[in-house]
Amino acid sequence: MRERLLAAEKIKAIEWRDGTLHLLDQRLLPQEERWLSYDSASGVAGAIRDMVVRGAPAIGISAAYGVLLGARRRLAAGGDWRAALEEDFRVLAESRPTAVNLFWALDRMRERLARLKDGEDALVALEAEAVGIHESDREANLTMAQLGLELIRKHSGSPQALLTHCNTGALATGGFGTALGVIRAAWLEGLVDRVYADETRPWLQGARLTAWELAEEGIPVSLNADGAAAHLMKTKGITWVIVGADRITAEGDVANKIGTYQLAVVAMHHGVRFMVVAPSSTIDMSLHSGEDIPIEERDGRELLEIGGKRVAASVEAVNPVFDVTPADLIDAIVTERGVVERPNAAKMAELMSRKRLH
Amino acid sequence: MRERLLAAEKIKAIEWRDGTLHLLDQRLLPQEERWLSYDSASGVAGAIRDMVVRGAPAIGISAAYGVLLGARRRLAAGGDWRAALEEDFRVLAESRPTAVNLFWALDRMRERLARLKDGEDALVALEAEAVGIHESDREANLTMAQLGLELIRKHSGSPQALLTHCNTGALATGGFGTALGVIRAAWLEGLVDRVYADETRPWLQGARLTAWELAEEGIPVSLNADGAAAHLMKTKGITWVIVGADRITAEGDVANKIGTYQLAVVAMHHGVRFMVVAPSSTIDMSLHSGEDIPIEERDGRELLEIGGKRVAASVEAVNPVFDVTPADLIDAIVTERGVVERPNAAKMAELMSRKRLH
Repeated sequence: MRERLLAAEKIKAIEWRDGTLHLLDQRLLPQEERWLSYDSASGVAGAIRDMVVRGAPAIGISAAYGVLLGARRRLAAGGDWRAALEEDFRVLAESRPTAVNLFWALDRMRERLARLKDGEDALVALEAEAVGIHESDREANLTMAQLGLELIRKHSGSPQALLTHCNTGALATGGFGTALGVIRAAWLEGLVDRVYADETRPWLQGARLTAWELAEEGIPVSLNADGAAAHLMKTKGITWVIVGADRITAEGDVANKIGTYQLAVVAMHHGVRFMVVAPSSTIDMSLHSGEDIPIEERDGRELLEIGGKRVAASVEAVNPVFDVTPADLIDAIVTERGVVERPNAAKMAELMSRKRLH
Repeated sequence: MRERLLAAEKIKAIEWRDGTLHLLDQRLLPQEERWLSYDSASGVAGAIRDMVVRGAPAIGISAAYGVLLGARRRLAAGGDWRAALEEDFRVLAESRPTAVNLFWALDRMRERLARLKDGEDALVALEAEAVGIHESDREANLTMAQLGLELIRKHSGSPQALLTHCNTGALATGGFGTALGVIRAAWLEGLVDRVYADETRPWLQGARLTAWELAEEGIPVSLNADGAAAHLMKTKGITWVIVGADRITAEGDVANKIGTYQLAVVAMHHGVRFMVVAPSSTIDMSLHSGEDIPIEERDGRELLEIGGKRVAASVEAVNPVFDVTPADLIDAIVTERGVVERPNAAKMAELMSRKRLH
């Protein structure tokens, strides 16, 4: 299975090459595939803020490379480079507030710095750490895909209709995806009849990114308006809603793309199972309730304009880009450390105390 | 109250003037206010199909004028004009399938034809009937606005947050609206703190039409992504979801714009009340269950393109433009004949047996 999954890794959105971070500009997909290059921490922070790169794991990976790029510049500038690097940590940390993978990756880089030995090459150590974060996310995708697939198979071995929201694929991660990785694995095993992809307003991650990834692989996909999900659950025999996450609390509450909470409520109403797939770097054990997760509110123009063209009337828009799904609406959280069914505080604590698989 | 409501009638989208039907082209709003003129039944059928005019009551009114225009042409052509007019009835009936107001209006016109006396001027009679349908819809809006307002006040006399979907205002009716008419009346009575308007993908009736109507009147409105509704219910203290309808069955099931069913499920989950406002011409006593209502599926390009520009990847789209909300998710159906709380077959039958108020 691992080999077949690796063979399905066709799209990449983050490349570290020749000392430069290359990002596939996700604002332009699928109409245009343009790569942008970054050689500074502030540049990477801007790319995260402006959503050149998005998706919680991809944001974390990019931020790790951002610290490396920052350290290289600070070292070249001389003086107390580690003190100066704090400014880069700050700028990267302020790029977006909700996905905890960002802060997790910054913490990993900071801890690596703290472990530097006398005479050790800081840039070599930081590069190894950033590449390690990138590679372990890819590995986590492979593990989660297999765990999620088994969960689907446990309930039905037949081809079935799945529904997903936002983009959780190769464009959002260091590998071939979290929720979309599970869907890819399920497709390879003959468990997918059709994938319904919410278009995911306002940024259209579903219409632009998920639909593109699935179409590239020949997986049958139908795009639908976000408001059509309940109607599709009632009429199309959907068995699972499978989504990613931007932050998961110690009690198993899940912050994810706006619309996820609504999906979870209607899935419960229809007896459709609800699976969250995210690496353990998404879990924030310092927060108990989902109510404590900072929810980013982005510029209303994301709703009022499309492609830079005004579509709406002259009104204000309220544009929270994440929402919180409480644990009691979730059937399973799939991580690379294992699966938590019917999540609660005890089960989340048990999961996080397990030894990492890699 | 009636006078204050009439004073709030500022926008019109349908005008019958000098023997011609004038329609405000709703495909271009709010960027452009362009009126189109029609002098044939097939022209009006095309305007309904292409959504120059939309909204169940407005479709019915336009179809009535369409029959009148058809009769004028058939009479001028000579021969068996009433037989020839059947073609116009057919073309108008096939313009859109879900809103029953269309068929109701065609039936009214056909019945008027059947009542023609020897020597009576058919065009004078048909014009009076079409204008009567138009005027009675306007009256129905005024009555429903007051009934809906009282229902809101019964539960709370304080300014509150309301959420609506699609457009149910002056642009969708012969007056100042069904659901939006109730909201206008509630605003005049100090019961509205803020209106949250779902943008209503794919056609953006909320972003383009509802937001425009409310902004024109200075009613505080915030536009939101359809997927944000549950999050707003949880965080903004919304008390009522108020929507229109395209067809209501004998058991009180309601077909309305795609996304309405999803809203009703999440409203129930949050204890938010759910009000449907529609004239009795929307009620189809010949159908028992909502499952029997024909649900229009429109071209997937409505999702894949925005403003003629491709936004989505090269995939298929599933684009049902209505869904069915079962009666047990509805707190009240407000019609000009009265209010049905917790609708069921017995209450709907009782409502429809009442004498019309006008």
